Amino acid sequence: MNFMNDTIAAISTPPGLGAISIVRLSGADAITAANAHFKGTDLTKVASNTINYGHFLADDQEIIDEVMVSVMRAPKTYTKEDLVEINCHGGPYVTQKVLSTVLGSAVRLAEPGEFTKRAFLNGRIDLSEAEAVMDLINSKTNLQERAAVKIVDGALSKMVKDLREEMIKVIANAEVNIDYPEYDEEELTREKMALVTKSVRQKLRSVIDYSESGQVLKTGVKTAIIGAPNVGKSSLLNMLYRGERAIVTEIPGTTRDTLEEEITIGQLVLDLVDTAGIHQTEDLIEKLGIEKSHEMIQLADLVLLVFDGSREMTPEEQELLEATKNKKRIIIVNKSDLAPVLDLSVDHINISALNGTGFNELKEQIESLFLSGIENSSSATLLANARQLGLLKSTNESLTSVLTGLAEEMPLDLVLIDFNEAWKSLGEIIGENAPDELVNELFSRFCLGK
Amino acid sequence: MNFMNDTIAAISTPPGLGAISIVRLSGADAITAANAHFKGTDLTKVASNTINYGHFLADDQEIIDEVMVSVMRAPKTYTKEDLVEINCHGGPYVTQKVLSTVLGSAVRLAEPGEFTKRAFLNGRIDLSEAEAVMDLINSKTNLQERAAVKIVDGALSKMVKDLREEMIKVIANAEVNIDYPEYDEEELTREKMALVTKSVRQKLRSVIDYSESGQVLKTGVKTAIIGAPNVGKSSLLNMLYRGERAIVTEIPGTTRDTLEEEITIGQLVLDLVDTAGIHQTEDLIEKLGIEKSHEMIQLADLVLLVFDGSREMTPEEQELLEATKNKKRIIIVNKSDLAPVLDLSVDHINISALNGTGFNELKEQIESLFLSGIENSSSATLLANARQLGLLKSTNESLTSVLTGLAEEMPLDLVLIDFNEAWKSLGEIIGENAPDELVNELFSRFCLGK
Repeated sequence: MNFMNDTIAAISTPPGLGAISIVRLSGADAITAANAHFKGTDLTKVASNTINYGHFLADDQEIIDEVMVSVMRAPKTYTKEDLVEINCHGGPYVTQKVLSTVLGSAVRLAEPGEFTKRAFLNGRIDLSEAEAVMDLINSKTNLQERAAVKIVDGALSKMVKDLREEMIKVIANAEVNIDYPEYDEEELTREKMALVTKSVRQKLRSVIDYSESGQVLKTGVKTAIIGAPNVGKSSLLNMLYRGERAIVTEIPGTTRDTLEEEITIGQLVLDLVDTAGIHQTEDLIEKLGIEKSHEMIQLADLVLLVFDGSREMTPEEQELLEATKNKKRIIIVNKSDLAPVLDLSVDHINISALNGTGFNELKEQIESLFLSGIENSSSATLLANARQLGLLKSTNESLTSVLTGLAEEMPLDLVLIDFNEAWKSLGEIIGENAPDELVNELFSRFCLGK
Repeated sequence: MNFMNDTIAAISTPPGLGAISIVRLSGADAITAANAHFKGTDLTKVASNTINYGHFLADDQEIIDEVMVSVMRAPKTYTKEDLVEINCHGGPYVTQKVLSTVLGSAVRLAEPGEFTKRAFLNGRIDLSEAEAVMDLINSKTNLQERAAVKIVDGALSKMVKDLREEMIKVIANAEVNIDYPEYDEEELTREKMALVTKSVRQKLRSVIDYSESGQVLKTGVKTAIIGAPNVGKSSLLNMLYRGERAIVTEIPGTTRDTLEEEITIGQLVLDLVDTAGIHQTEDLIEKLGIEKSHEMIQLADLVLLVFDGSREMTPEEQELLEATKNKKRIIIVNKSDLAPVLDLSVDHINISALNGTGFNELKEQIESLFLSGIENSSSATLLANARQLGLLKSTNESLTSVLTGLAEEMPLDLVLIDFNEAWKSLGEIIGENAPDELVNELFSRFCLGK
């Protein structure tokens, strides 16, 4: 892993115009490389965790920028290596120029996520914590943010390590029994194994349950807005955007691209299925496109089925009502501003997308469909991501086999295989014996400079 | 100015996803306000210019983020006030949440540019330096960046102060002569005034000349691409974009919006006049729109007049050739990939926008039109902005009147009025007696968090 010995650098702040940008360096040459272009105090001599005023110079000694340089010395840094952060006046050109200037024989451009990858490979954080760093950056709701920071802070890591510590004792015991059957304490070991297995399973159970029902909090609710042409799907969409606009515009960097595919409703992110299609079927008064609607229904976690309250239902709409009855759905009767004509026997919400009435009721219904029982327990339980959840479940399955094996009085060495399997998959959560491909793939999804 | 006593906070990094974001606080309560939400070392007790690891807590004591907090104590800070920078994991949601949490009774949201405004009002920097901070952030070329950082670093400020120091001595002398004519050293004072006036004028001259010819470096070259339909204006535009694409994409934050109106060619930024129009007259084979072309020619610093080399010139094109002859123009004969038909007696460049040939020659011609004599002197001379240049010129005019007055033996008190006027307008460059409206207007153009 000679590659890991390189000193790396990247711009660590978001791209674009801002007041401050940071060029970050990590590695054995970080301090000398920054110092070679710094006019101010001698950075190689300053104390760790100090921030130093000075000028950053080009190769020809002309000033590029007035900067503040943080020096953090190994090992108590983000990467456990020497770390330097050059705070520049935040223009894209000048920041890029500072970066280009530090890059050279001793310093190369960092790969996406490489700083955090080093934190992992150098043992400061484990894989669950590293994953949560990116979840934290990508979080869009309070629940996402809290769930992520808890794991960044090591809560999942601690749970896994504690459970594995209990398990390793049992494994050691069992191995002694298998290797030296003459000692014949096997009965005791079997009892201990059963006890620990049950205790571990119980602890995993609550995280698995919460993470399964809460997965939608992490990944977003795939939402299909379905209905005949001109019932007001497009206006409903606008109402949903508008409803949370105040929040959305409070958060810088919420781009229009994102806006068109995602809506944050309270603690939930709705991922809209086929937004373009919604506008299309509203703009062109085309045929209902029943197959397309069925496709969207299939994909969706949540169906918002829209009717026009000012007219009778068509047979095609009746069909949609039928097709969605086993889905999580909310039936929306739009155009409550007009004289009511539609007579609907199923539960529904009356809205007027035009003047915005009914938004709060709609929001509450969506939240009650996906958040009931989740929000309150958020402070108590861990929300694992899909990879972690998968491993928690296979751990649980292996432990179930252990219990079956013990109940059926199978030989200890056979039962131990399952118990070892559980111990291993639990370890994979925190990156024990994680294959390089997994690690590389995981960090490649990080942003540059992290 | 009680308002100035508030402690302020803002997100100082560019908006969007990134590895690190900074929430910055300035003011008397900055350290205690940050400390109230910080779990780690007691920030009120740490040394100045230290960066401290810990957790940032919500009001309910739940962890919001793992952070590094820089503490910089007044007066040696950017604002001359206590300054705190909370470095968060750079997601927009989490950063916004950290900001919302620090805002409260003791801290309010900063206005755009308010940190730098405080640096100015507290006397750390003058107005020329403050203006250059924003120029530095907005710089897009090496020359812009170097010109801006030189003024950030105080070069214009120093020149102005030095000249004013020479001048104030003369003013003091002259006032003594006017108040106590019995001393009768007036002849000496007149000689001294003439000497200083000439010396100041000489020093101003080089900055005025350079800034006038170099203004286009700061503001961009207004460029009109003119030509008959289907000569290849649109392809030329694409070739220009493509030619610098490598550089453009190297700089994060160069948005597509910008791309469509601006092209960076070496040290020059071309601001394209009516890009939409170019595409329109290419797409629709419409009439030439000769009035439109004349409008664009009027507006432009540079005209790129495009012909189709594979056919004869039309009378309308002959008219365009005539209409641009007194402008800075480059005549471009496109479609050099086809058999040549057009026979043109004036200087021109042959290009094939289709396969990209001729780009370098075009680039060189543009640069030689606008950069000849500029680039080499960049290290020697100051590039003032439009406001500063205006003041330099009025200073110069007042000084011309001084010399005329002295030559015509006008009474000293009358000549002194012009000399004082010069002293005052020179002072306005660095913000002496700058009216509040000017200061407010200037800083309102800054970005948030600066």
